[in-house]
Amino acid sequence: MTLKAIGIIRSPFAQAQGTPIQPCFAEGAQGVVEVFEEYHEALRDLDGFDRIWLLYWFDRARPASLVVRPYMDDAEHGAFATRAPVRPNPIGISSVRLLAVEGDRLRVGDLDILDGTPLLDIKPYVPLFDHYPAVRTGWLDGDATRNGRGVCADGRFQKGDRT
Amino acid sequence: MTLKAIGIIRSPFAQAQGTPIQPCFAEGAQGVVEVFEEYHEALRDLDGFDRIWLLYWFDRARPASLVVRPYMDDAEHGAFATRAPVRPNPIGISSVRLLAVEGDRLRVGDLDILDGTPLLDIKPYVPLFDHYPAVRTGWLDGDATRNGRGVCADGRFQKGDRT
Repeated sequence: MTLKAIGIIRSPFAQAQGTPIQPCFAEGAQGVVEVFEEYHEALRDLDGFDRIWLLYWFDRARPASLVVRPYMDDAEHGAFATRAPVRPNPIGISSVRLLAVEGDRLRVGDLDILDGTPLLDIKPYVPLFDHYPAVRTGWLDGDATRNGRGVCADGRFQKGDRT
Repeated sequence: MTLKAIGIIRSPFAQAQGTPIQPCFAEGAQGVVEVFEEYHEALRDLDGFDRIWLLYWFDRARPASLVVRPYMDDAEHGAFATRAPVRPNPIGISSVRLLAVEGDRLRVGDLDILDGTPLLDIKPYVPLFDHYPAVRTGWLDGDATRNGRGVCADGRFQKGDRT
């Protein structure tokens, strides 16, 4: 199973430090998704959607850890119970706002992705498929989501970062 | 960028024909996610979550098409404006119900995935991150989601299927 980049994500975030950790914390953060020209036809009708999923490769993440201390808690949790980038297959998913389709460039908002990140896939966000409001969220059910902790990343999961 | 299977998804669906096309159409469809033993530690605390994202490899999908006729419409659309499996990088995402964690086996519901599918990643479903209720959904804003069309797949995207 091998992947190829279908484009590049351009964002204001050159490094993990200070990057919003999720789209919900990234209001106002805009960027551009540059889709390679050979995939132009696959973008047809995408402009009807307000939100899209971006799937991308965490190219600057450290090697996988099975147990991690996520931004939003002081305790360790299994990597599969977190959204940390240090995963066996370092694929990220983010539901970003689609502001405009300009040829092969998508202007997007609520962007929580590092500049230069390889893009793997684009899917439309469909509430019928993706929207489950009232569910238990384990260790996140506590204070983590309410007090705004962990709104931005630090360098803990980034390759070569000493912070 | 290379991927490795971290487990195998076991479901009642041996072929695309008759398989629900999304979790929302798969109520009652249960299965088991068999996570390989070496990733056991990464499952810690996953049991606190009601829903999880499964990322998986569409191993029986035909080669990528840039334009597809999806199950829920008669017209063609760009592949990135659909959730069809015939994509440049054939990765699927499904938000399934987590019923129980039994060692390295996850019992799951709302399952829309073929039996034997290679598992790539597990992430917790977090409404704060994943839940955007009121958004435009392009070609799906019409009758497609209301009249229940396309609840189950046929063979159009499956390798070797003649239907």
